[in-house]
Amino acid sequence: MAPTLADILAAVERIRPYAHRTPVWTCASLDRAVGARVFLKCENLQRVGAFKFRGACNAVFSLSEQEAARGVVCHSSGNHAQALALAARLRGVPAHIVMPSTAPGVKKAAVAGYGGQITFCEPTLEAREATQARVVAETGATVVHPYNDPRVIAGQGTAALELLQDHPDLDVILAPVGGGGLLSGTAIAAQETAPGIRVIAAEPEGADDAFRSLAAGRILPSVQPRTIADGLLTSLGSLTFPIIQERVERIVPVSEAGIVAAMKFVWERAKLVIEPSAAVPLALLWERRIDLTGLRVGVILSGGNVDLEKLPW
Amino acid sequence: MAPTLADILAAVERIRPYAHRTPVWTCASLDRAVGARVFLKCENLQRVGAFKFRGACNAVFSLSEQEAARGVVCHSSGNHAQALALAARLRGVPAHIVMPSTAPGVKKAAVAGYGGQITFCEPTLEAREATQARVVAETGATVVHPYNDPRVIAGQGTAALELLQDHPDLDVILAPVGGGGLLSGTAIAAQETAPGIRVIAAEPEGADDAFRSLAAGRILPSVQPRTIADGLLTSLGSLTFPIIQERVERIVPVSEAGIVAAMKFVWERAKLVIEPSAAVPLALLWERRIDLTGLRVGVILSGGNVDLEKLPW
Repeated sequence: MAPTLADILAAVERIRPYAHRTPVWTCASLDRAVGARVFLKCENLQRVGAFKFRGACNAVFSLSEQEAARGVVCHSSGNHAQALALAARLRGVPAHIVMPSTAPGVKKAAVAGYGGQITFCEPTLEAREATQARVVAETGATVVHPYNDPRVIAGQGTAALELLQDHPDLDVILAPVGGGGLLSGTAIAAQETAPGIRVIAAEPEGADDAFRSLAAGRILPSVQPRTIADGLLTSLGSLTFPIIQERVERIVPVSEAGIVAAMKFVWERAKLVIEPSAAVPLALLWERRIDLTGLRVGVILSGGNVDLEKLPW
Repeated sequence: MAPTLADILAAVERIRPYAHRTPVWTCASLDRAVGARVFLKCENLQRVGAFKFRGACNAVFSLSEQEAARGVVCHSSGNHAQALALAARLRGVPAHIVMPSTAPGVKKAAVAGYGGQITFCEPTLEAREATQARVVAETGATVVHPYNDPRVIAGQGTAALELLQDHPDLDVILAPVGGGGLLSGTAIAAQETAPGIRVIAAEPEGADDAFRSLAAGRILPSVQPRTIADGLLTSLGSLTFPIIQERVERIVPVSEAGIVAAMKFVWERAKLVIEPSAAVPLALLWERRIDLTGLRVGVILSGGNVDLEKLPW
């Protein structure tokens, strides 16, 4: 079931002792470059370097003592894995992270650094799900899905809620879309607290399954996505899709060149390290894919986890 | 004459409409890495990407209408030049920037982008000073020195003042030292508002003229400095040196490797783009050059202007 505003408000209180209330930042040269007044919600400055900590933290601290004691599990090699590992460590319970043996060493080290217990598997979705099921059977751990979970969606929605507390008069709010957890939480938080606000998503052209799903009226899988925005490769979920259908004005594809240009501009001028996925909604502004001239636009900067040895310029 | 706390408080009011009140940021992984509780005053997020805007803005808006109408001038190709150009533009008066013809194109473009009128000269100190004198003779512009000016020092001190307003209970405050404008302003602001606070400076080993000057009891010139921290190449000034002598506990040299390591860590983990000069006080913590274990340490992150095509790792 879709979370409500009450769920998001409860999440705010639940994660407050653990998550950062991230700053909202503005940059005059960015405003000039895109012709709008942009308010950057800096989730790159969130713990583990991504908004994902909000959802994972809300999920872990929603569990009963009994449930929590048996631990949590997910299959992920990205920001969600790190987020779940840290949230579990903060609650003092085990986090089992199923990762393909082919995952980059830096991602394995990051999860281990937050105390996650890694179980390796073959690099296929079937192997990941089978391995996760085995961990559940052996430990009784609770699965925390990266986006198709109402506790996770409610947690992700806290970023937009904070943004609108700081700047209640936004005209539009932009977020990237991968599995749709951030986007659906953002849409609920925004529309329930700022009626009339427009919620628009951006997606890489090379991974435009959410755009096509909205057009088709059903979830289309993400097949061989090709984009630098490696946080946005997944398909929508059964829980996130209807929320997005109901609440999101449109999903706008953006180019790879636009993603890189917007990302570099933010590094150079706003002095913030953001990952390609976070640059996706900025690319929508950068490329002026839709006319937002003169509007007050909130942007969820989703994260800042990049390999400094492999920058895309 | 050295500025007083009253001058710094006046500067706070004077620059308020133009300068950012920059956020103070913390990073749990940085704290663990250095064994202290670190509060980062993010002047990399200041306008023009550096604290220099505070001093230039205070100087420009301190001028009478008559003085201001004749414009301002400096010889600089660094952050101060951009800061002065922007401050003058905000007041609607000309900024004459004397730059060596050999300055990098990106620096010329940045100054021109803020509306500065560039006068080129030969790349020697004599030529720069002679050219600046000629501009003054021709235009009546007021010279705004990058650090040896009480209005500039007072402006730079506003960063520490804001930091201590947000976190009054710091044990130590760290700043880098080049010409000493930031350091002397920081020391006055800190000691006059938080009696007993320790003020410590960090300087690259390859440009340790301030360290040697303090030991010698007189200003020693910066001769052939070699460091990646290109904002810290200058010698102390007649105005900044006695303030530093009186108020700064010590100046600590740090290694180039420490500067790069601290800089990279902040990019990777704190997600902030900082320039090498800003990493110099962090290198002091990183290398544990002095024992600050367990203390609450404020750090002025001086700026974030770097060439993303030429990163030092």
